[in-house]
Amino acid sequence: MNPSIHDIAPSVIRELNSRKRSDSIDLGLGEPILRPELAPFEAATAWVAEHGCPYSPNAGFSELRGTIARHYAYPGLEQAANVCVTVGSQEALFVAIKALLDPARDEALIVGPSYSLYPKLCRMEGVAVREVSFDPYQGFRPNAKRVLDALSDKTRVLVIASPNNPTGRIWPREELKALALGLSAREEPVTVLWDEVYRELYYGEAPPASMAEFYPRTVVVNSLSKSNALTGLRLGWLMAPAEIMPLALKVHQLTVSCASTYSQRVALEVFNHGLLGNHREHYVVGREFLLEQLDKEGLGAVAPEGGFYAMIRLKGAWAGDSTKAALALLERKNVVAIPGAAFGAEGWLRISWVAEREQLALGLGRIREFLELTPKT
Amino acid sequence: MNPSIHDIAPSVIRELNSRKRSDSIDLGLGEPILRPELAPFEAATAWVAEHGCPYSPNAGFSELRGTIARHYAYPGLEQAANVCVTVGSQEALFVAIKALLDPARDEALIVGPSYSLYPKLCRMEGVAVREVSFDPYQGFRPNAKRVLDALSDKTRVLVIASPNNPTGRIWPREELKALALGLSAREEPVTVLWDEVYRELYYGEAPPASMAEFYPRTVVVNSLSKSNALTGLRLGWLMAPAEIMPLALKVHQLTVSCASTYSQRVALEVFNHGLLGNHREHYVVGREFLLEQLDKEGLGAVAPEGGFYAMIRLKGAWAGDSTKAALALLERKNVVAIPGAAFGAEGWLRISWVAEREQLALGLGRIREFLELTPKT
Repeated sequence: MNPSIHDIAPSVIRELNSRKRSDSIDLGLGEPILRPELAPFEAATAWVAEHGCPYSPNAGFSELRGTIARHYAYPGLEQAANVCVTVGSQEALFVAIKALLDPARDEALIVGPSYSLYPKLCRMEGVAVREVSFDPYQGFRPNAKRVLDALSDKTRVLVIASPNNPTGRIWPREELKALALGLSAREEPVTVLWDEVYRELYYGEAPPASMAEFYPRTVVVNSLSKSNALTGLRLGWLMAPAEIMPLALKVHQLTVSCASTYSQRVALEVFNHGLLGNHREHYVVGREFLLEQLDKEGLGAVAPEGGFYAMIRLKGAWAGDSTKAALALLERKNVVAIPGAAFGAEGWLRISWVAEREQLALGLGRIREFLELTPKT
Repeated sequence: MNPSIHDIAPSVIRELNSRKRSDSIDLGLGEPILRPELAPFEAATAWVAEHGCPYSPNAGFSELRGTIARHYAYPGLEQAANVCVTVGSQEALFVAIKALLDPARDEALIVGPSYSLYPKLCRMEGVAVREVSFDPYQGFRPNAKRVLDALSDKTRVLVIASPNNPTGRIWPREELKALALGLSAREEPVTVLWDEVYRELYYGEAPPASMAEFYPRTVVVNSLSKSNALTGLRLGWLMAPAEIMPLALKVHQLTVSCASTYSQRVALEVFNHGLLGNHREHYVVGREFLLEQLDKEGLGAVAPEGGFYAMIRLKGAWAGDSTKAALALLERKNVVAIPGAAFGAEGWLRISWVAEREQLALGLGRIREFLELTPKT
């Protein structure tokens, strides 16, 4: 048995889900409750009727790879050859961490708070990992200097998500430029693994800036899961500079051969018919409702700039043990929320606001009641 | 960069494919040319219309897991909990090798000739690997004693495919019993990684025996790719004893989250409507045609007991360099066949007989002509 895998701790999210009751208010969801458009599925089914369901090339259908590259048009990543179609962004993250790091000497630096599977992926690969986190008293606002100061001589990969899960923060353009400048000045190359899986769900004027616009050594991962309510499609991609792609493709091929042909045909329809990001308006409206409810209940929270999560501040004794708080919230108030500790943000609860409005309002009300009864330290 | 991945050699199959011309006769194919039934796709599309396309549980929908477990009913693997739905059998192989072996001390023993990605998967994971191969003069007939004699104190995983790619041989029941007996007598446990992806394509009276019938420490991998012409569906499974499953599930979750929801709905339809293996008759007929043509051309070959490949014996100078032979065959006769060296079977060519009849007949004729012009050593 592989001890690196044996030692990976089970997730607290799993523990919460196992205690969840059928009538629980679930603010722990990690996926949209919207229905995806059906037309891409009908078109993909028609394609199978005509062509069968053969393997795609390992890296994906070149038509889809080219479409993705052209859609984002990041400098240096504009060609089909810069894209590998993956089994969701999860496989893209796995491929990047596996390919980019030498377990014998390299280290990954994860910018937190963060998706809990980043450090677990590193541990599975036997790669040393450290985390640097932003100031909760500044609402976890991204800060280039803080990240640059945390780099070590061994850091070869920097993992960043923007929009961030769990904080909902987006890296400001100026901070990204400062980060790119600092990284470019370093002697040993650092690759940025840039997770923009929530990119289409933004609440400012323009789509979030991407590190790939400023820094050539960027590997981008994304998928249709969140933008188009297609989590079950398992269709994502990795975009990488030419010198990185051959290694990434070897890992991808050995791990899964290729992504689903059917899912790739669905994805082509989504891109070709301009459906990418057309769920955004739904979330813009939902976020307004969230902010109203947070205000009404007087809950301390970080207003999300992107994605569909929000961080709520714990108080008193709970602030020191968000896991205990989340378990008590479920037991006493029948509400599921994810402890900040799962993301390296002790003292907070992450709620997902994809739920139905009544459920969200009810859940936030119960969280307020729960926090009012917080034991004082 | 990860040196274990950098050092993995590119595949000779890729090299051959890059030299293939549009009018080449392709006997190198690794997938059926049949069309899959459309009804399961239509049913899955209707399911998406009703339910959307959410994540499945990490291990797959429990309905599908239970259906697969009950269908095979291998002792100790009869429960849904013994099944993890994977992204084709490739991901199942990856998960098993990753989970079962400690790179610091364990060794995998691969029973050859074999699919070339088994040793590459081990190398990617930094796991020591050895190979034991059967006697070509006995048509690569499986032999338990030969395998047992090749085990070392470090061997923790034994990788076996039956029906075999490339030889088409199936392990006889008696040999499997002898292997199970020998393995059970060992002090240190050895897990058998049993690849039965060609199980539904057999040419004897009954389906091939599975190691899982005889040996409790067996991990079975399989998929719908070959049996139902669904290579692009990326739908496979891993069946494992209860003590192995938690580790396998961690790897699976971190690598891909879960298999495609859509593909799983298609798979449920395939199982529930008895479509599994209904392509077999097509291959039974195709194999008869193959044997006639081999006989007509006077080619020395191993008659396949399962799968859709056949091994053809090289002669003279070619017998020492099947890679050179395959490249020369493509250049001189415009026929693609895979060199035995890619599978650890020097002196042979693997042909795939899924091609159209005229193509197969023409290709075999040209191979005969090619071999007649073989330079003498």
